[in-house]
Amino acid sequence: MLTSNELKRFKKLHQKKHRILEQLFIAEGVKVVEEFIKEGFNPVYIFAEQTYEEQVSKSVHRIASKHMEQLSPFKQSPGLLAVFEMPIKKKLTFNGWTVALDTINDPGNLGTIIRTCDWFGIDKILCSSDTVDCFNPKVVQASMGSLARVHCYYGDLGLELKSCGQVVFAADLKGECYHEAEWPESGILLMGSESHGISPSLKNTIHRFVHIPKSKNSRAESLNVGVSAAIILSALQK
Amino acid sequence: MLTSNELKRFKKLHQKKHRILEQLFIAEGVKVVEEFIKEGFNPVYIFAEQTYEEQVSKSVHRIASKHMEQLSPFKQSPGLLAVFEMPIKKKLTFNGWTVALDTINDPGNLGTIIRTCDWFGIDKILCSSDTVDCFNPKVVQASMGSLARVHCYYGDLGLELKSCGQVVFAADLKGECYHEAEWPESGILLMGSESHGISPSLKNTIHRFVHIPKSKNSRAESLNVGVSAAIILSALQK
Repeated sequence: MLTSNELKRFKKLHQKKHRILEQLFIAEGVKVVEEFIKEGFNPVYIFAEQTYEEQVSKSVHRIASKHMEQLSPFKQSPGLLAVFEMPIKKKLTFNGWTVALDTINDPGNLGTIIRTCDWFGIDKILCSSDTVDCFNPKVVQASMGSLARVHCYYGDLGLELKSCGQVVFAADLKGECYHEAEWPESGILLMGSESHGISPSLKNTIHRFVHIPKSKNSRAESLNVGVSAAIILSALQK
Repeated sequence: MLTSNELKRFKKLHQKKHRILEQLFIAEGVKVVEEFIKEGFNPVYIFAEQTYEEQVSKSVHRIASKHMEQLSPFKQSPGLLAVFEMPIKKKLTFNGWTVALDTINDPGNLGTIIRTCDWFGIDKILCSSDTVDCFNPKVVQASMGSLARVHCYYGDLGLELKSCGQVVFAADLKGECYHEAEWPESGILLMGSESHGISPSLKNTIHRFVHIPKSKNSRAESLNVGVSAAIILSALQK
């Protein structure tokens, strides 16, 4: 049984401050929930509407649809929702490639970047402190479970980039063409916000700029930041 | 002045059937609205809250915030909204590259694919009839104005692919590696849905399968469909 106090408590996890306070977050849908469990995340509770009850490997609490609607951060709940403990914070070490994100506000974009990093074997993302929280429910869903494997670190991006000892590549509208660039074994790929680009305060941390050329006859102004990151990461991986 | 009848009428444009009936669609935000105007789309009305009034090149009707909230399909309206006439339907011709989409439901994904096509100089997308409507407000916004230049055709994908006379490449988890494939001057890139892949009924229209290899140590299951399309299109463009 889900008490009304529990309902209130877990609903608050839609908000960042309560997630931090409780060190808990919400994930939804059989596939995403199973990914977290598989990677060793501890589900404090799993709630399910009747039809989903037998689809996960752990024991679930059956709840009414009306309660699921309240618990779920989404208009249409997938019918299964888990509350997970946040992972223990690891120390950030710079080996291999790291993606750095400057002021990425859109949760769908962060989720997609997490998923893409996971595909290309990058397990850490360094985020400016004003980048959207990776445990935001929309980020969790867009990452499709990849958040279980990719760690997001939040901090002072300028300080981290200055002291990391890595070559910092920034995606920009200028610079060398991404598929002609020579990529070292390790480094940082810095992505800025679509509307404002890379913060002026970070400019002196960048060693090289790379750009994705558009077609000669194209009148498009920009690419989605998740798409840009993916195209560059695909080149990096080769 | 916005009459209550007009408010009702334009609010209905959030729904596909009313968009088709009226041959009108909604776009929001200065940047997106200006892109459509620049490309010759006819704005039937432009509505703005006070602060945005002077930011567009056409005459705008000032409306109250509470009306904007009702008109806007989004929780947070950018404060400027235009109702455009749909473009006249063109006949689909297969020259150069065409992207074909099989059952892409997520409006953000379609919008991103439209934007990416625009960047890489592809101006036509062939959509299965169950793919999300390109004039869905979320598609319009995610395309960031690129929908003004990229035409989406809806129809029987199987029939079109069979009769188009082009080589059909399908993105899949198997097939040749996308960056080793030899891309002809023109062709079709077929993308399937993330959850169900390419429909079995389309399998016999496909000439070649291409895949995006993941990193050796990756446990990720898939990439976002917009990301996959972008990575393959970036290779195609080279």
